[in-house]
Amino acid sequence: MKQTVAGNMLIAQSGGPSPVINQSLVGAIMEAKKHKEIKNIYGAMHGIKGILGEDFIDMRKESAATLKAVANTPSSALGSVRKKPSPEDCVKIFTVLKKYEIHYFFYIGGNDSAETVHIISEEAKKSNFELRCFHIAKTIDNDLRENDHTPGFGSAAKFVAMALMGDNLDNRALPGVKIDVVMGRHAGFLTAASALARVYPDDGPHLIYLPERPFNMEKFVADVKKVNEKYGRCVIAVSEGISDENGQAIAAKFSKEVDSHGNVQLSGTGALGDLLAAEIKAKTEIKRVRADTFGYLQRCFPAIISATDSKEAALVGATAVKQSLKIPSGSIAIKRKPGKKYQVYFEAVPLSAVAKETKHMPDEFINSEANDVTKAFIDYAKPIVGELPVIGKFAGKKVNKK
Amino acid sequence: MKQTVAGNMLIAQSGGPSPVINQSLVGAIMEAKKHKEIKNIYGAMHGIKGILGEDFIDMRKESAATLKAVANTPSSALGSVRKKPSPEDCVKIFTVLKKYEIHYFFYIGGNDSAETVHIISEEAKKSNFELRCFHIAKTIDNDLRENDHTPGFGSAAKFVAMALMGDNLDNRALPGVKIDVVMGRHAGFLTAASALARVYPDDGPHLIYLPERPFNMEKFVADVKKVNEKYGRCVIAVSEGISDENGQAIAAKFSKEVDSHGNVQLSGTGALGDLLAAEIKAKTEIKRVRADTFGYLQRCFPAIISATDSKEAALVGATAVKQSLKIPSGSIAIKRKPGKKYQVYFEAVPLSAVAKETKHMPDEFINSEANDVTKAFIDYAKPIVGELPVIGKFAGKKVNKK
Repeated sequence: MKQTVAGNMLIAQSGGPSPVINQSLVGAIMEAKKHKEIKNIYGAMHGIKGILGEDFIDMRKESAATLKAVANTPSSALGSVRKKPSPEDCVKIFTVLKKYEIHYFFYIGGNDSAETVHIISEEAKKSNFELRCFHIAKTIDNDLRENDHTPGFGSAAKFVAMALMGDNLDNRALPGVKIDVVMGRHAGFLTAASALARVYPDDGPHLIYLPERPFNMEKFVADVKKVNEKYGRCVIAVSEGISDENGQAIAAKFSKEVDSHGNVQLSGTGALGDLLAAEIKAKTEIKRVRADTFGYLQRCFPAIISATDSKEAALVGATAVKQSLKIPSGSIAIKRKPGKKYQVYFEAVPLSAVAKETKHMPDEFINSEANDVTKAFIDYAKPIVGELPVIGKFAGKKVNKK
Repeated sequence: MKQTVAGNMLIAQSGGPSPVINQSLVGAIMEAKKHKEIKNIYGAMHGIKGILGEDFIDMRKESAATLKAVANTPSSALGSVRKKPSPEDCVKIFTVLKKYEIHYFFYIGGNDSAETVHIISEEAKKSNFELRCFHIAKTIDNDLRENDHTPGFGSAAKFVAMALMGDNLDNRALPGVKIDVVMGRHAGFLTAASALARVYPDDGPHLIYLPERPFNMEKFVADVKKVNEKYGRCVIAVSEGISDENGQAIAAKFSKEVDSHGNVQLSGTGALGDLLAAEIKAKTEIKRVRADTFGYLQRCFPAIISATDSKEAALVGATAVKQSLKIPSGSIAIKRKPGKKYQVYFEAVPLSAVAKETKHMPDEFINSEANDVTKAFIDYAKPIVGELPVIGKFAGKKVNKK
C-alpha cells in the first residue's frame, strides 16, 4: 500500500442526473472533511468541461445547512456533461490536476465516467504523480457491472412504480389501453420496476417489454388483445430501447413519423409511445388507446426518493473517500449479501471492471413469454425501492338489482 | 324549505380522475352516515353508466379502514365515465332512482356532471318526486364557474410544480431547451402552476404559454432565443391546448406528423411537444432541445397531494350531504374570503351556475407579453398548492484560476 499523500481534492458529476447523485457528492465531501490529508475540496462545474476550463468552486465554503439541502435535492448540483473525453483531453485534465495540486480525484457517473477515471489514473501512473482516482457509481439505468444495483436506480424505480400505480388506477376508472414508455435504452431494470406497482390481482402493468428481448409487433398486438379480453383494459410498460431481433430500434423501424422539417424523431420525444398506440388502434377494435412517455421526470422528480437508495448513495460517496486514503484507485460497488434479509456492503473494485461494457437484466428476471418480469426480479427490486404508497380499494359488495 | 325525506342515497364519479376525488366521495359517505334520513348508501360504478345499468355497490359495507385508505388513493374508486347523458338517458336515470327509492343523489365531476345533475333535478321536479340533487365539484383544470378553485386542482398543480422543479434542475445540469406540455385544453391554470417551481432567480420555467392567449410560433421562437441568450438554457411550460388567433390548435395547424396509418395525432400523445422542439431546432442554433408531455401522471400520481386540496375535497363532499338535508339541489362551490390570510368557505350555488360554460384564467393572472404569469397568480395559487420540497443550491464560491 502506498503512503497517503497530503493534497487537494477534486470532485465532479457526469452523465444523466439522478435523484440521489447529490447524496454521493455530499457524502464524499462530509467524509473528506474528516481527513487531515485532504486540504482544499474543489467541485468542478459540469464534469470534465469544468476541469478542462478550470471552473472550480470551493466546497469548504458551503455551510452545513446548504450541504444538507443539496444532498436532498435531485439532479447534479455541480452541473453535468455528456462529453466523453478523448485521450488528449485526459492528458489535459491530468495537467490541470497537477497544477491545482489535486491528489484526490472523484468522478460521479456511469460506465463512461469510470472509463474516464481509469484513463486519468493510468496517465498519473505514467507520470509518477501520486493521484488517488475514484469512480462513484451513479445511474438510474442500474447497468453497471460489479454492482448488485447502482445509486439512483432505487429512486427512479420508485417514481416509475408510483407512476404506474397511479396510471393503473386511472385506467381502471376509464378503461382502455394505456402505454407507458420508460427510460432505459439497453437495460430494462427501470421498466421492470413498473411491476412493483401491482397491489391487487387485476392491477397493471399487465404487460412489460424490455430491451433484453426482441420486440415483435404482432406478438405485442396479440398480447394486448388477450389482456384486454380478460380485464377489459390493459396497462403496458415498455422500455424506450425496445428493438427487433436485429437490434434495430422499434421507433426507427416502424415510424413513418416526420416532423415539419422531415426529420425522423427517436429519443426525447413521444414518438415510440404514439407509434405503439397507433398500431393497437389499427390492429384491434379497442377504441381508447393512449400513450405517455415519462421522460426526464423519472430521473429528477423531487421528494420521490427511496430511503435505501438515498442512504446508499451517500455511503458510496463516503466510502470512495475512505478508500482513497488506502488504495490508489477504484470504483465503489454495492454488493448484496446472500440471504432473505436485505443487507449490502461496499467494495472498491478495479476501475476497468466497471468501465466500458454495461450489464443487462439477467434471464431469471424475465418471463419466458418476454412480456413480464419474474418473482425473482420483484424480490430483487423491492428492498431497493422501499416503501410505496398504500392503495385503497373498495370491497365492492354488489347491491341486488331490482 | 322543503321537509327532508327519508330514503336511499346514490353517489357516483364522472370525468377525468383527480388525486383527491375519493376524498370527496368518502367525505360525503362519512357525512351521510351521521344522518338518520339517509338509509342505504349506494355507489354507482362508472358514473351514469352504472346508474343506467343498475350497477351499484353498498357503501355501508365498506370498513372504516377501507374508506380511509380509498380517500387517500388517487383516481375514481367507483370508476368513471366520459359519457354525457342525452335527455332520454336522464329520463331513464330518473326511473332507476325512483325504483331504488333514491332521494339523495350526488354526482362528483366537472361542468358536464353539473349539467347532468341539473337535468335530473328538473326531471324529478316535473314528476313531483322528492329528489335532493347535488353536484360535487371536481376538476384538475380548475375551470368551474362560481369556484375560487376546484378540488383536484391543488394536487395536480403540486405535481406540475414539482415536475418543473426537477426538470429545471435537470436542465441546469445539462443545459439546452426543454419543453414541458401540461394538461388543460381551454383553461391554463394547471400550466400556470408551473411558475410555483421557481425558487432561485434563474430558475425555470422561463416561459409559460397558456390557451387563454393566441400562440404565435415566431414569437415563441424569438422568446426562446432571448431566454437562451440570457441563461444559456430555457425551460418552457406549455398548455396542451395552445391555439392560434383563430382558435385552431397548434398541434393541428403545424404538425405534418402522421402515424404509420396516416392519422394526425393530437391528444394523449407527445405530438405537440415534439413539434415545438422541432421548430426550435430548425429555427435556432440551439442543439439540445427536448420535450416531455406530462400526460396522465399529473392527474393520478399517488402521494403527491396538496394537504389543503385534500381537506377541501373532503369538505366539499361532506357539505353537499349536509346541504341536501336542507335544500333540494345545488353545487358546492369553494369561495375564498378576501384578505391576505388564506380562508375559504363552502356555498351551495345553483346547478345552472356551474353547468355548461367553464371559466378561464383572468387577465390579471397573465403577463402582457403572454409568455408568463403574474404575481397575482402566484399569490392566488400558492396556498392552494401548499408546501413544496426544499431545493438546495450551492453558494458556489469560485476558486481562483491558477
